[in-house]
Amino acid sequence: MIRIVIAGPRGNMGKEAVQMVLETDQFELAGVIDRKNGGKTLADLQGLPDAAVPVFDDPVHCFQETQPDVLVDLTNPDTGKVHMKLALENGVRPVIGTTGFSEADVEEMSLLAESKELGAIIAPNFAIGAILMMKFSQTAARYMPDVEIIEQHHDRKLDAPSGTAVKTAQLISEVREKKKQGHPDEEETLQGARGADVDGMHIHSLRLPGLVAHQEVIFGGEGQTLKIRHDSINRRSFMPGVKMACEEVMRIGVLVYGLEHIIE
Amino acid sequence: MIRIVIAGPRGNMGKEAVQMVLETDQFELAGVIDRKNGGKTLADLQGLPDAAVPVFDDPVHCFQETQPDVLVDLTNPDTGKVHMKLALENGVRPVIGTTGFSEADVEEMSLLAESKELGAIIAPNFAIGAILMMKFSQTAARYMPDVEIIEQHHDRKLDAPSGTAVKTAQLISEVREKKKQGHPDEEETLQGARGADVDGMHIHSLRLPGLVAHQEVIFGGEGQTLKIRHDSINRRSFMPGVKMACEEVMRIGVLVYGLEHIIE
Amino acid sequence: MIRIVIAGPRGNMGKEAVQMVLETDQFELAGVIDRKNGGKTLADLQGLPDAAVPVFDDPVHCFQETQPDVLVDLTNPDTGKVHMKLALENGVRPVIGTTGFSEADVEEMSLLAESKELGAIIAPNFAIGAILMMKFSQTAARYMPDVEIIEQHHDRKLDAPSGTAVKTAQLISEVREKKKQGHPDEEETLQGARGADVDGMHIHSLRLPGLVAHQEVIFGGEGQTLKIRHDSINRRSFMPGVKMACEEVMRIGVLVYGLEHIIE
Amino acid sequence: MIRIVIAGPRGNMGKEAVQMVLETDQFELAGVIDRKNGGKTLADLQGLPDAAVPVFDDPVHCFQETQPDVLVDLTNPDTGKVHMKLALENGVRPVIGTTGFSEADVEEMSLLAESKELGAIIAPNFAIGAILMMKFSQTAARYMPDVEIIEQHHDRKLDAPSGTAVKTAQLISEVREKKKQGHPDEEETLQGARGADVDGMHIHSLRLPGLVAHQEVIFGGEGQTLKIRHDSINRRSFMPGVKMACEEVMRIGVLVYGLEHIIE
Repeated sequence: MIRIVIAGPRGNMGKEAVQMVLETDQFELAGVIDRKNGGKTLADLQGLPDAAVPVFDDPVHCFQETQPDVLVDLTNPDTGKVHMKLALENGVRPVIGTTGFSEADVEEMSLLAESKELGAIIAPNFAIGAILMMKFSQTAARYMPDVEIIEQHHDRKLDAPSGTAVKTAQLISEVREKKKQGHPDEEETLQGARGADVDGMHIHSLRLPGLVAHQEVIFGGEGQTLKIRHDSINRRSFMPGVKMACEEVMRIGVLVYGLEHIIE
Repeated sequence: MIRIVIAGPRGNMGKEAVQMVLETDQFELAGVIDRKNGGKTLADLQGLPDAAVPVFDDPVHCFQETQPDVLVDLTNPDTGKVHMKLALENGVRPVIGTTGFSEADVEEMSLLAESKELGAIIAPNFAIGAILMMKFSQTAARYMPDVEIIEQHHDRKLDAPSGTAVKTAQLISEVREKKKQGHPDEEETLQGARGADVDGMHIHSLRLPGLVAHQEVIFGGEGQTLKIRHDSINRRSFMPGVKMACEEVMRIGVLVYGLEHIIE
Repeated sequence: MIRIVIAGPRGNMGKEAVQMVLETDQFELAGVIDRKNGGKTLADLQGLPDAAVPVFDDPVHCFQETQPDVLVDLTNPDTGKVHMKLALENGVRPVIGTTGFSEADVEEMSLLAESKELGAIIAPNFAIGAILMMKFSQTAARYMPDVEIIEQHHDRKLDAPSGTAVKTAQLISEVREKKKQGHPDEEETLQGARGADVDGMHIHSLRLPGLVAHQEVIFGGEGQTLKIRHDSINRRSFMPGVKMACEEVMRIGVLVYGLEHIIE
Repeated sequence: MIRIVIAGPRGNMGKEAVQMVLETDQFELAGVIDRKNGGKTLADLQGLPDAAVPVFDDPVHCFQETQPDVLVDLTNPDTGKVHMKLALENGVRPVIGTTGFSEADVEEMSLLAESKELGAIIAPNFAIGAILMMKFSQTAARYMPDVEIIEQHHDRKLDAPSGTAVKTAQLISEVREKKKQGHPDEEETLQGARGADVDGMHIHSLRLPGLVAHQEVIFGGEGQTLKIRHDSINRRSFMPGVKMACEEVMRIGVLVYGLEHIIE
């Protein structure tokens, strides 16, 4: 049984995480941290399950009272950093789902985790399917260096290409020699047809109602293509990643940045 | 039994057509027209089946000798026009697989076909699957006006987007009100990500080894998407269109331009 | 401006329809019919928008008071039939979104609509994308008779194959000659590999978490394939169909069964 | 420069391999082994490039004369085994593209390779894209254990499911706990709809003209799916695998069975 505390239980991710922990046999929800609702129980918070789990406004108090194994933090970058440090100092393994850590921050936390011999995980992205897609794409690019990326999102998205598409292209760039793809003399008769260029790779962004968040990475070689596609339709898709992180953080004695490093 | 003459039997399309006619129960290959090999038989021509079909260098002579029902012309634009006229004048229904007819040409041939009460078909594209894709796309756009086009070809192709993609966009433009798709404030952080713009629609062109000729048209509406995709991997894909044209030209008494008009 | 009354406003479909009518410029929500809430306004009903639209428990009373152009009925088969008849008798064009009409029922309603010179629509399925997929599939099968159907749903679905897959196969069967597909001597080394057989066509049913409701119809011909795919991720996907039916029912003077008959 | 000898140059794979080696900068074709054409040159063999490469009927003679680094054997299982042994005994690293090695055979060759401190590769499948698909599928199944396999082939294929689909399912079975997928009470209203069952996984086999060889592995999790798809359209798709094997066999000092073990 892994005893877990969740910080940020009222956010979108937090709500899903509370439910996931309650539904998972080998997990126990020891407490939640919510600055505005100290002293209440989970059942008192609107939209949350009717469970007698204590709510704390102070993280240290929470750690001392509930003696948890793991802190899952789904708050915001600033609070996440503070909570991470306090957790490690109090013997609690942190799983931090926020971005915004500088290299110096990661270095500091890493040293702290090692000195305490505690596992710690920082995960900017909990979507296991997306992480697998990126990881597989990087591997495939070593053997099939011709590749294009198509990302598809709903038409309320403002920026193109998506962050995941750019990150995928960067991961691929790390392993393949730079090459300009397509025919050397190719011409766009309509500007933009060949998409955005990242180190010779092309990224194409579709925006349509009815889409949610999708990405396909297509590798082409003589006589064959390999396609890796991830489709995400809601936030529940992040929970298997949170769950895996909670299990994995118990097995490791160092800080890991990014779920891709605990996969495989 | 439909008696057919093929002009241009040694070209890529011609070879496939010869084989298709020989293999089709209700078709008979009455003769072939080949300027350079008059007087020989099919069996004498390299790379063609061992059949005792007469070869003519003169089309009128061929029509008079073999009394065919249909001429299938797979030569070139100039010759195709000449052959079409001669066929109609000699009571033979033409199926012309070349482009390059001006509006005036079509008008002239149309009057000639009507005066002779003969069917005639000019088909710039024999790929039935591609024609169905374009036709369905036009219909779908009436009900789901948000649409993007992804076309994918081998990386030896010089121009982007493909002619089929542009034609598809034009067919869609004919029926939908002009609208700029995507978020009104959307921004490309990498130029070209959103593809080429045709009347507010976006076209994306992929070029990779291992691809041949593919196109997907994606329609998006609240909570749903509809996708129509055509994949073509070789020239044999044109034969069902040639076959259909040969059958259909027997049933009609006018000139039809484009196979899309004899479908459905 | 088309004045619309909605019966069954508290159901899942009803709620979406209320919102759609309120948001559509050329539509006006004249009233709603709800047996349990006569005399209230829409704003009094839980989960519905805060609008001063009158609620009626009696349909005839509603029709007389609000003088609507169209009744949208999203109740249940029994109530739907009663409402349809009352609407026609009171000069209101019915759009009925329930199943369960026998052939005799349809015949009776059809005669009634004609005698009143009123349009009427019965629509067992409002998902335009799905209807287009079925319609296009039927057309494509005339020209490319080799076809397989893959339907994919979430893993809480009990029956396989889906109703839509079976209906698609039936529509295709109507137009193509019966033929057994695949190699005449093909063998399943694992039972079920080739899917379910419907008149020589094969249907394959996938069930996985993360899927919602998807279907792909694949047509194969020499050297080419044509794929028509519909993905549905929520109930909002039905609203464009309801909207189209409301507009179309104003233009016709007969009963139409199935949205496929008002498309194209 | 890697000096290569090819055995079996007149087969389909052999022809492609000859061309690949001639076209690759860092490779040199030192000779070919062809039992029926000893003493000629490559230029004398029909359908092969016009190159002054010597042909040997005896492998040992060939190895001694040409002093190659690598033997690529594309003959048949019996000959492949003999050639492999002779190559190792003569200091040549073998890349053997045939199946039919028993465990005992592999063990024997493995000891021989180690005693000679020579790399050796046996590759039943050179299609890198297919190998990546299988490898990624096995990894993904650890994190997303719900999976279905769709394989699609031309309709002249006799058996279903394909060997690759069965092998993929076996690789997945090795890593995931056995589980029956789908709803526990699910029912087939048409037999076979849910496909073939392999350890609780489902495999679906499509057969259509216009298809060549395709496989998609679909993983489903809450709110997301991950798809890995390989499309192969001709034999040239095997050459990058042959090339990689020739390079890799120079770096290793043991026998490797299966290209999956030299990837990543």
